Amino acid sequence: MPVAELSHAQLARLGAADLRAEIRNGQYTRHTAGLAAGKLQCNLAILPEADALDFIRFCQRNPKPCPVVAISDTGRPQMHTLGADIDIRSDVPRYRVFADGALIEERTEIAALWQDDFVAVALGCSFTFENALIAQGIPIRHIERDQTVPMFRSNLDLVPAGPFHGKMVITMRPVRADRVADAYEISRKYPLAHGAPIGHGDPASVGIADLSQPDWGDAVEVEPGEVPVYWACGVTPQNVLTNARLPLCITHAPGHMLIADIPEDAEIPIFHPENKQ
Amino acid sequence: MPVAELSHAQLARLGAADLRAEIRNGQYTRHTAGLAAGKLQCNLAILPEADALDFIRFCQRNPKPCPVVAISDTGRPQMHTLGADIDIRSDVPRYRVFADGALIEERTEIAALWQDDFVAVALGCSFTFENALIAQGIPIRHIERDQTVPMFRSNLDLVPAGPFHGKMVITMRPVRADRVADAYEISRKYPLAHGAPIGHGDPASVGIADLSQPDWGDAVEVEPGEVPVYWACGVTPQNVLTNARLPLCITHAPGHMLIADIPEDAEIPIFHPENKQ
Repeated sequence: MPVAELSHAQLARLGAADLRAEIRNGQYTRHTAGLAAGKLQCNLAILPEADALDFIRFCQRNPKPCPVVAISDTGRPQMHTLGADIDIRSDVPRYRVFADGALIEERTEIAALWQDDFVAVALGCSFTFENALIAQGIPIRHIERDQTVPMFRSNLDLVPAGPFHGKMVITMRPVRADRVADAYEISRKYPLAHGAPIGHGDPASVGIADLSQPDWGDAVEVEPGEVPVYWACGVTPQNVLTNARLPLCITHAPGHMLIADIPEDAEIPIFHPENKQ
Repeated sequence: MPVAELSHAQLARLGAADLRAEIRNGQYTRHTAGLAAGKLQCNLAILPEADALDFIRFCQRNPKPCPVVAISDTGRPQMHTLGADIDIRSDVPRYRVFADGALIEERTEIAALWQDDFVAVALGCSFTFENALIAQGIPIRHIERDQTVPMFRSNLDLVPAGPFHGKMVITMRPVRADRVADAYEISRKYPLAHGAPIGHGDPASVGIADLSQPDWGDAVEVEPGEVPVYWACGVTPQNVLTNARLPLCITHAPGHMLIADIPEDAEIPIFHPENKQ
């Protein structure tokens, strides 16, 4: 008997653990924006151990686009530093599977694909600093309009490591000119969620030819009195992973994040069972 | 012809790159406290690649005692994300070499010991947040008295990874009761330098039997009106490394740090040759 999926509104009332249980059971397979308010949400990359050290080196060298918040043991699908009973094979609503750099399928669980040499790496995401900006009176237009943040290939070189290299992918959010300094100060407090902007102002300065033509996501207008502000984007590691053409790697589907049991403003991304943060 | 070593005072006037050149040439082999003011100083661990992924996992899971600021390529002694022309075989004033967990020698360079499978990991150190505390009017007694910070084995379990596990080593600094909250707020801004304290007050609460009997360093008195405040300590990874009894690993000698070309208050520990931070 097929089970009807729960609605986004029904899910929004659940805590992180209950929400992951619904996701694990296949009751919810859509995007996680706005769910489990206040909890850290994570980008995900799963790859064979043979490339894991280079990938983690790459992330360490590019901490703004690739802030590492957890690394699984090799072959073990549990992510015990991110929460109680997280199974990375089933607890993300939607996965993407890449072979030799090509997307071969989207799935809602990856149990049958799990390998003894897999390492799962979780990376912070922009939901965290967006929530902080909104809480401090800096509105985020693409959220107000229920759109996807505009993303662009920048001209910013990433620091390479092994097979991983390329240009940084960046997002743009318009900010009122008198709040740009605040946007830097607020988001800098979240180094595990891309940190401070990588720049602002002239799109050409970061390699963007036309703000109305994002490479991914929806175009967002910059209104009079506003400045375009650019942040490092979590699409960067996905892009770099596919460019490296690994025989097999798995990521979350964009927007379909892993939800941790950790407050998004936690100083460190480590779950302690005894204090259930 | 033996060359006389430069004095600490002579060295204190040099920038990071000039200082490293003196260290590389064997002109200076002593501790680096107070040198290259404003630059990031780093703890160091060098180990074979076979254990590097587990060690980095361990550091990621224990970011307060083990804040990773750089990871070398395997077999390459350059640390290009920390500065221009850093050679990790020669640019630290004093090294310790461990075999099967036992200290076998101290050296001032390790060129002859370097292996093609070595990975060097640099970790943030407490000099950074101490400087910030002092700058904001919170004095550090062991520095005023030219002593070594008192270090203790705590009762705080580290999150294990592979062969790496144990208890956290912590430092104690007395802080006037009305500045304890400030000490948390100030040091929390330096996640790459141990971050906020792990606790304060009753020594028994963190497993310290007697504050006057540190396991390493010098005893420092807590005066009336002061509270003992505890921070995660960079001796933790050294302790964990030696307990893991790797066939061979190399660390800096305590206090004899790697000096980077990066400002100690940088948001991310990445050196950009073009902007010479």
